[in-house]
Amino acid sequence: MSLFEPRRGPLTDGERVMLVDAKQRRYLLTLVAGQVFHTHAGILAHDDVIGVAEGSEVATSTGRRFLAVRPTLADVVVKMPRGAQVIYPKDIGAILLAADIGPHVRVLEAGVGSGALSMAMLRSGATVVGYETRADFARIARANVAEWVGEEAPYRVHERDVYEGIDEDEGYFDRLALDLPEPWRVLVHAERALRPGGILFAYLPTINQVSRLRAEMSRSRFELAETSELLRRTWHVEERSVRPDHRMVAHTGFLTTARLTTRISPAR
Amino acid sequence: MSLFEPRRGPLTDGERVMLVDAKQRRYLLTLVAGQVFHTHAGILAHDDVIGVAEGSEVATSTGRRFLAVRPTLADVVVKMPRGAQVIYPKDIGAILLAADIGPHVRVLEAGVGSGALSMAMLRSGATVVGYETRADFARIARANVAEWVGEEAPYRVHERDVYEGIDEDEGYFDRLALDLPEPWRVLVHAERALRPGGILFAYLPTINQVSRLRAEMSRSRFELAETSELLRRTWHVEERSVRPDHRMVAHTGFLTTARLTTRISPAR
Amino acid sequence: MSLFEPRRGPLTDGERVMLVDAKQRRYLLTLVAGQVFHTHAGILAHDDVIGVAEGSEVATSTGRRFLAVRPTLADVVVKMPRGAQVIYPKDIGAILLAADIGPHVRVLEAGVGSGALSMAMLRSGATVVGYETRADFARIARANVAEWVGEEAPYRVHERDVYEGIDEDEGYFDRLALDLPEPWRVLVHAERALRPGGILFAYLPTINQVSRLRAEMSRSRFELAETSELLRRTWHVEERSVRPDHRMVAHTGFLTTARLTTRISPAR
Amino acid sequence: MSLFEPRRGPLTDGERVMLVDAKQRRYLLTLVAGQVFHTHAGILAHDDVIGVAEGSEVATSTGRRFLAVRPTLADVVVKMPRGAQVIYPKDIGAILLAADIGPHVRVLEAGVGSGALSMAMLRSGATVVGYETRADFARIARANVAEWVGEEAPYRVHERDVYEGIDEDEGYFDRLALDLPEPWRVLVHAERALRPGGILFAYLPTINQVSRLRAEMSRSRFELAETSELLRRTWHVEERSVRPDHRMVAHTGFLTTARLTTRISPAR
Repeated sequence: MSLFEPRRGPLTDGERVMLVDAKQRRYLLTLVAGQVFHTHAGILAHDDVIGVAEGSEVATSTGRRFLAVRPTLADVVVKMPRGAQVIYPKDIGAILLAADIGPHVRVLEAGVGSGALSMAMLRSGATVVGYETRADFARIARANVAEWVGEEAPYRVHERDVYEGIDEDEGYFDRLALDLPEPWRVLVHAERALRPGGILFAYLPTINQVSRLRAEMSRSRFELAETSELLRRTWHVEERSVRPDHRMVAHTGFLTTARLTTRISPAR
Repeated sequence: MSLFEPRRGPLTDGERVMLVDAKQRRYLLTLVAGQVFHTHAGILAHDDVIGVAEGSEVATSTGRRFLAVRPTLADVVVKMPRGAQVIYPKDIGAILLAADIGPHVRVLEAGVGSGALSMAMLRSGATVVGYETRADFARIARANVAEWVGEEAPYRVHERDVYEGIDEDEGYFDRLALDLPEPWRVLVHAERALRPGGILFAYLPTINQVSRLRAEMSRSRFELAETSELLRRTWHVEERSVRPDHRMVAHTGFLTTARLTTRISPAR
Repeated sequence: MSLFEPRRGPLTDGERVMLVDAKQRRYLLTLVAGQVFHTHAGILAHDDVIGVAEGSEVATSTGRRFLAVRPTLADVVVKMPRGAQVIYPKDIGAILLAADIGPHVRVLEAGVGSGALSMAMLRSGATVVGYETRADFARIARANVAEWVGEEAPYRVHERDVYEGIDEDEGYFDRLALDLPEPWRVLVHAERALRPGGILFAYLPTINQVSRLRAEMSRSRFELAETSELLRRTWHVEERSVRPDHRMVAHTGFLTTARLTTRISPAR
Repeated sequence: MSLFEPRRGPLTDGERVMLVDAKQRRYLLTLVAGQVFHTHAGILAHDDVIGVAEGSEVATSTGRRFLAVRPTLADVVVKMPRGAQVIYPKDIGAILLAADIGPHVRVLEAGVGSGALSMAMLRSGATVVGYETRADFARIARANVAEWVGEEAPYRVHERDVYEGIDEDEGYFDRLALDLPEPWRVLVHAERALRPGGILFAYLPTINQVSRLRAEMSRSRFELAETSELLRRTWHVEERSVRPDHRMVAHTGFLTTARLTTRISPAR
């Protein structure tokens, strides 16, 4: 299955599906003819899901009911096999805009983690070269991209440490996406690997890291630096009770972008 | 110029460029050989910008200096000609994920406004049919898409009122994006125009509207409804002063999504 | 023990103390000579706490260590016996300012719940008359105030339904604090019971209620209405990791204040 | 006029009053018989305000109408003469709870600024000793407290630098409130001047300062440290339009509290 070709007809054998129960719990599974899905309340035969329209209700042997829909990219990202901490969908959306990802944009992504951001950038039409020091993460990212975006996706992950440099044979990149602990160590390489005007993006959990990155940037050729954070609050909406939900995620990461110039910063 | 083919070389005649001054003020202009850009501090000849590398510094006759870069989609959205209120970049990113926009996804967008969301969806590979009641907005949206995405973009805007129905000849849509005051009036049409499993998205400024929409949804075939809001806080980051900026946008709109099922809601 | 006279010397028999373990878990107990406090890791003799200075470390039989301090009002509020949902300390602080609570201010509080807000207002010097329909809540509130503020506090709680009116024998109030579901039903009584210029305050969990209250207010003699919400985000601060905590309370209640005028609203 | 004795009858000569116009603009003035208040739309004779009930409407010579009410402490704080940046009412409320301010609590306040926090603590019954290095700020704070709380308030401001130590003749304090740039320089003095169990509170604009303070605290006798920030969002509530206001204050200061123990921190 590829995110590149949206599926539209009945759910088919081999396809990924998301089952949602009455309590809004979500289960992601691959439909395989003849197999069954075990639940607390009986067994659901995959054959009872294969062939039905998306958005249909399916039931277990004991009558527990599920809604069967194809998962969105955001559904996949929070459910798929992961190595590192996955970037939240709210942040992925912001990154696509902040890093101005679009068709044919050439991205170097250092610290691919589970491939969540890779998937979103690839789906937006970008070409992605990944650098990842951990072999297990690289493997998970490649598998996730192959399964959810497609084998043919313009995606290569190298087991390399970007702190040690960026391979000149790759040519120039339009974007550099950094999800690793010490992005300031990449600035000197980024000045060579990015084309002028290119965008560097970094995702950082602590403000200490942001502070260090921005300080080093002010002595580099990167300018127009911006740091922000996104807070997403969900709402409980019932006819007689409309209010924000009581709990929320208070922090995921700080987003920093900057653009490569041809001039030396006055601060340098 | 098309967002589909990222430009990489020197800035060229006829191209859009963003000039940023020392106070971080941003100016968007189209480079035209022989023309000049008037500033408070002298004149900048376009010819002095044409041919330089992106990320270069250019100067006016009196020495006022600008950084010249190509604008991102987000830069364009906040600067381009607009009819209606433009959707903020933070919300556009969230919508791309929430509405699961990707290549070949067929979107009906009702209330296209200035075309900002259209541009982002088109760049993500979607095919967009717009419904817009106001002729002037439709014209602005078409012009913005033509300029920033390209004449060849899979984009048609009809001057039609979606409250009165969706043309059956359009076939089924994968997504329905609503940026209009009474989206609940579209639900009955949406049940016919969306394919099962399709996603409806609505962007609403007030909680009254959200409340009404969600109430009507609970009596429709739409389920898995979610409403959220996004708060973006920018940070001031200098070596000895790291803190959130003092002011922020406290509210833009509430985002609501739901999926079309084949079952009648128990609430109906 | 009374919050009116801050205790300063060693911890004494009969006094409330808060024990905090290495994982920052907090336990509130009353010191009684001869008694013991049972923990997962051994027994702590009250006699080992009585007589030590506040801020001392005390240890169980197996060596588990606690810090012993006197609880603050905020510590008490989140730990004390409660009937209804307790108002959060962040909101109590805001209410003291928004309702301008100070010495000798006469407050009618309708819906006293567990008495948390009563305690804070009494400590600020106010005189509080409570209306509470539930006898069990009234009892808990009286007991909490007696224990934490003192028997002598200027506090009376009547088991009365404020929707049915406010006793004229009480005379005029300076403030009216409403923590109940339908505060708009109190406006007509409030116009008689509050002195001109007096402040009405309402704490409401849903925006539907806020909307109804404000609509009714616009047809009353209340003006200068303001509604706000407070978000409190805690931070994780360690030498190498400074960031917001990952989770937060996203919603408690909406705060609405207004002032009683002598004029009929133009909207009426 | 004293905040300690709430005034209740008609507005009187010599009293402070707040006038609010139809656009919700607020003006704070002292009523003086025979004087006039000049507005863009005519003249308002103080004599037309003196003697009317609080909450009355008063009009200028040309018919422009104002609502006349006594100001709250929060109204005063944002309008009164100021030297330094004033602490926001939202933060003052939080500080009263976080620092557990109440009757007879002895507070050393270093960096009194304009006296806003002093006023709130005094009104809550505390005794306040202020340290302030700037003579002009000390003078403003004393005047504000004298005017708004009363000449008899238990308040003394010394022109002293708390970094250089705390006068031992003052005896022990229950609380130490710090609104100055380098609170970590006060920790060593605070360990001597606060009684065991006492609470230290610091208000800081940048996270760098918070980080430094918390690091130094971890090597001191202060424990149970907590840092938080408060975001206040106001709402626009009209019958058909209920939504958050579009703009908000995104940052004022970080609040940090800790308690003095008798033990040396393990981190030391």
